[in-house]
Amino acid sequence: MKYKKHIFVCTNQRPEGARVCCGEQHGMALTAAFKKAVKDNGLLATVRAQRAGCFETCEQGPSVVVYPEGVFYGKVQLSDVDEIVQQHIMNNKVVERLKLDFSENKD
Amino acid sequence: MKYKKHIFVCTNQRPEGARVCCGEQHGMALTAAFKKAVKDNGLLATVRAQRAGCFETCEQGPSVVVYPEGVFYGKVQLSDVDEIVQQHIMNNKVVERLKLDFSENKD
Repeated sequence: MKYKKHIFVCTNQRPEGARVCCGEQHGMALTAAFKKAVKDNGLLATVRAQRAGCFETCEQGPSVVVYPEGVFYGKVQLSDVDEIVQQHIMNNKVVERLKLDFSENKD
Repeated sequence: MKYKKHIFVCTNQRPEGARVCCGEQHGMALTAAFKKAVKDNGLLATVRAQRAGCFETCEQGPSVVVYPEGVFYGKVQLSDVDEIVQQHIMNNKVVERLKLDFSENKD
């Protein structure tokens, strides 16, 4: 696998007054914060953080998904980035307080 | 896991004359084609296709990655979409002729 962890951050922006969404401005700031944390922790060779479009988790955003685990995080703030990187990305421990539950879709 | 298959399509556009890249126009057309194929095959509940930023596979683009497998495809054309959806997404058989190899990063 190219990346041990691949972090996608929603940067989708819906029109003003439409369905609630993660938002481009916050998403781009989150993406930059994840990129910086990845770099600062010396993970550039094995971890990729990047922007993405809508995950269809809009109401629970701002949203982030980490693959290959497929763990979705919701209501992610800039202050959460270091915890996600240090706990999940570096130590494989999901940040339970931010994890989104999709029980209806579980196999 | 929210999605059984999550397809990300690079839609990154670098400035004219800069490093070769997947390109926004082709990426958005690919994204639309994947979305249509997902819908037409009745997969909307379990498969998500969407745009994303750069995967750092620019020289081998246009690029697509399918998670949770972490299989990257390169030089993907609109004419390849149905094959990827029907062979990989629906039948779990990687489309070897388009698969990118990152042997140096293998675990």
